[in-house]
Amino acid sequence: MISTAYLNGQFLPLSEARISPMDRGFLLADGIYEMIPVYAGRPFRWPSQLARLKRSMAAIDLKQPMHDDELLNLIKQLTERAYKTDLLIYLQITRGTEPSRNHYYQADTQPTVFAYTTDLPSYTLPLKVITTPDMRWQRCDIKSISLLPNALARHQAYLQGATEALLVRDGYVNEGSSSNIFIVKQEMIITPAKSPAILAGLSRELVLELAQIHQLPYQERPITESELYTADEVWITSVGRKVQPITAVNGKLIKQGNIGPIWQQMMKLYDKAIEDHRHGRK
Amino acid sequence: MISTAYLNGQFLPLSEARISPMDRGFLLADGIYEMIPVYAGRPFRWPSQLARLKRSMAAIDLKQPMHDDELLNLIKQLTERAYKTDLLIYLQITRGTEPSRNHYYQADTQPTVFAYTTDLPSYTLPLKVITTPDMRWQRCDIKSISLLPNALARHQAYLQGATEALLVRDGYVNEGSSSNIFIVKQEMIITPAKSPAILAGLSRELVLELAQIHQLPYQERPITESELYTADEVWITSVGRKVQPITAVNGKLIKQGNIGPIWQQMMKLYDKAIEDHRHGRK
Repeated sequence: MISTAYLNGQFLPLSEARISPMDRGFLLADGIYEMIPVYAGRPFRWPSQLARLKRSMAAIDLKQPMHDDELLNLIKQLTERAYKTDLLIYLQITRGTEPSRNHYYQADTQPTVFAYTTDLPSYTLPLKVITTPDMRWQRCDIKSISLLPNALARHQAYLQGATEALLVRDGYVNEGSSSNIFIVKQEMIITPAKSPAILAGLSRELVLELAQIHQLPYQERPITESELYTADEVWITSVGRKVQPITAVNGKLIKQGNIGPIWQQMMKLYDKAIEDHRHGRK
Repeated sequence: MISTAYLNGQFLPLSEARISPMDRGFLLADGIYEMIPVYAGRPFRWPSQLARLKRSMAAIDLKQPMHDDELLNLIKQLTERAYKTDLLIYLQITRGTEPSRNHYYQADTQPTVFAYTTDLPSYTLPLKVITTPDMRWQRCDIKSISLLPNALARHQAYLQGATEALLVRDGYVNEGSSSNIFIVKQEMIITPAKSPAILAGLSRELVLELAQIHQLPYQERPITESELYTADEVWITSVGRKVQPITAVNGKLIKQGNIGPIWQQMMKLYDKAIEDHRHGRK
């Protein structure tokens, strides 16, 4: 797929988009982003996504560069230009470009808005993960582009042929480098509660919603690394991955490498939610 | 001063430099940087600077894009193009641009090398600072561009009319957002020891070297926040700031707001080291 990009008011091929290296996003990682799944030409769970985007911007005192309806319109326009109905849109907003590099910023600096379209990713089961120390800062709940620790962790997984790195701090698995973690134990679906240590994704939110609606028992509480190995099921979630079953952690098989029944049930519910969105229901 | 920039093999005005927003420096803060002071047309303490640059690159598995002598030549060429003999050069190296955004990277991706010239900063004494929680990741010893927490801390200081934010974790002052911290107590010069919690700057190294050569007593050990208020002197150091005396912390005067004698002595030694460099001594 040829990517269509948007940069500060202009639509253009992604390969032609250019920014100044003085952009605070490039110099200081001073920005936030969202990954927006689009199905049937409309963004999935847009109100939640917009709320999180606004929350991230507020958390770093970044002024909202476009009105809510302009943002939605941007997504629609990018989708039209991609000639696809199902895709992902990457949206990044940075503090913008200033003439000189300072850690502090000026109130009137115009934010940079960058977005582009890309394919929904595909994955081949089974999927394995590794664990690695969580080296990140103390505000992982902000979806910022200050992602070097995430990138380094994920690269370790990549080198080991694993799909994701689970980040462990003080013995607890907080989440993956770009996904949330779930385990199932005796039919109880478990995921860490929201806190500054995790970035609560849209797919995490949807899974909990679906569990509630369909009366699947779930619990938000810390997960220890050792619990992974004795879990009946391990999942990771993200808008690109949806809900993925993990069959091995650090080379150790989970439940003899079998994909579990609760995951199968949840995946059906998740896909049903997407189908409902396609048909304008809910 | 008109800034001359260098970007991937080309010299051009800073205002004309452009990169792809798909650069991993912009998307993922996947890069490192150095701030290189130049006096009399030659980089100050280059061997130390080069060693730190190489250390940062190795720490994030970033391949060195230019040979050591090419880097030195780049600094010389930028200096010549700036028509100044005393200046600062900002150098940033990122993992480079890949066609799609992934946390993991490809081994053959060509790093982006960006550099530009700028004036040595000037400051007006007296200087005050604030303290703020140290929210950063666990590898602050890597001079990475993943600087959002530093930028947010420094901006808090800026809003309060302070020159720097000192970062406090577990009651200890690790350093400033872009400087190292020193205190003087009963003629003892004290600064935190090297660790993953601090970025040991070139000016910190020089101050300790000068203390040793001139037999000024010094100690590398943790500094508690409360020690700041009872210190005889508080300094911050960076290559741009050199050694700066701080007269107030969070609005509380240090030693009744008087600038101390050890600072005056150290500042003379520091300036003497620069003079020696100018004359090719040392």
